[in-house]
Amino acid sequence: MKTLIVYAHPEPRSLNGSLKDLAVSTLEGAGHQVRVSDLYAMDWKASADAADYGTAASRPLKVARDSGRAFDTGTLTPDVRAEQEKLLWADTVLFQFPLWWYTVPAILKGWVDRVFTHRFAYGVGEHSGTRYGDRFGEGTLAGRRALLSVTAGGPESHYAARGINGPMDDLLFPLHHGVLYHPGMDVLPPFVVYGADRMTAQDYSDAAEGWRQRLLTLGTTEPIAFRPQNHGDYEIPSLRLREGLEPAGRTGFGLHVRG
Amino acid sequence: MKTLIVYAHPEPRSLNGSLKDLAVSTLEGAGHQVRVSDLYAMDWKASADAADYGTAASRPLKVARDSGRAFDTGTLTPDVRAEQEKLLWADTVLFQFPLWWYTVPAILKGWVDRVFTHRFAYGVGEHSGTRYGDRFGEGTLAGRRALLSVTAGGPESHYAARGINGPMDDLLFPLHHGVLYHPGMDVLPPFVVYGADRMTAQDYSDAAEGWRQRLLTLGTTEPIAFRPQNHGDYEIPSLRLREGLEPAGRTGFGLHVRG
Repeated sequence: MKTLIVYAHPEPRSLNGSLKDLAVSTLEGAGHQVRVSDLYAMDWKASADAADYGTAASRPLKVARDSGRAFDTGTLTPDVRAEQEKLLWADTVLFQFPLWWYTVPAILKGWVDRVFTHRFAYGVGEHSGTRYGDRFGEGTLAGRRALLSVTAGGPESHYAARGINGPMDDLLFPLHHGVLYHPGMDVLPPFVVYGADRMTAQDYSDAAEGWRQRLLTLGTTEPIAFRPQNHGDYEIPSLRLREGLEPAGRTGFGLHVRG
Repeated sequence: MKTLIVYAHPEPRSLNGSLKDLAVSTLEGAGHQVRVSDLYAMDWKASADAADYGTAASRPLKVARDSGRAFDTGTLTPDVRAEQEKLLWADTVLFQFPLWWYTVPAILKGWVDRVFTHRFAYGVGEHSGTRYGDRFGEGTLAGRRALLSVTAGGPESHYAARGINGPMDDLLFPLHHGVLYHPGMDVLPPFVVYGADRMTAQDYSDAAEGWRQRLLTLGTTEPIAFRPQNHGDYEIPSLRLREGLEPAGRTGFGLHVRG
């Protein structure tokens, strides 16, 4: 297994740092290859702008079009090309981050904004009467597995079905489905540590053991059963889910998961 | 009316730039005061780290606790203090941004991560058997109105109830409820321009007219009816919505909207 870990926390001696270190040692101990993108240590540039596209940047700047042209002509900046290369090298991609304001820290959002360029992660494949690009189950990163490892300050009840923050599965849907499944990756159920702000030594020990088990079963864990875009579940080009495919009463993001 | 516009797009001659300019001229033309935080022009630092908290940064760094101490002792960096001051000055806060990967661009996420510190935007108020802090309807920014003005590349059908991206209201929920309602702001329904990647002159004219109408009715538009945390709808401290309060069949994020 070849695993890329994308890690976003400013403090190495944090819970997130420990979980990242544990992933490296566990996977290497099991004979796998591991590469880490430690975004804070790399001083990762978070904000996408014209400088990212070199000579492909037009005036006025068109982010989608120009990023795709820079990808096609090899004029993306070296930091972005290195991350794209790591993604192509990997068969498994883990993301380790704290939930800040119900999603990823800005530095990790900036990794997505800059690395997931047009023609690499979107705008790929045929657009026709029966296809709307290679995406949602197909695309450049098809055949790879992805997993979010997330720490949340609050207790689990706040993120439960009736919890005030909304269900964790719904909070992560735009990342799972919109960012990872979109360019073709299979997405494994997330690993979430709740109550991260007030953990005891025993809590940490339990979390670490849970994480080790997830790491050692990455290859056999069943992905979330998102619906592929181009295989009949959606009308094209409206991309509206056909009626009657979902279990009775299901609405919202959950519509896009089978069964 | 005193309006702060937080604007995040790298190209002044973009649709987002035009909508921001239109907001300034429309509001000023109606006699209101306007301030703009143009995050790209300000070269806004997106990634939260120890440098943000000055002498309040501990080793190892604790982001929540240290940011709260820096807020309490006035040692946050001047850029962050300036934004907090603008928020306290404003009675209305508009956000103008393109939807990138189903949420805000990294630079705007970084504005939230760094400006919405502990003790300013969370960790405020009494925690007891009947209250869990001043949040979700109460807090530092109570009494202010907020509105997201968003451009989306794809057509509206992709973001409809059965659309492949999920419903726009659900995609925006973590921002509306988790970021804006959390520190107490009333959140107005969003203004969304779809199909932003292929607009005709007529499309732009229609969008501009729609935006002008929204701007001229900011003071009288009904906010989204999110449920306040501390007034009986939630069990404390589980923050689980009590049974039977919602319309039959409603689930997910929609549970947290009344009626």
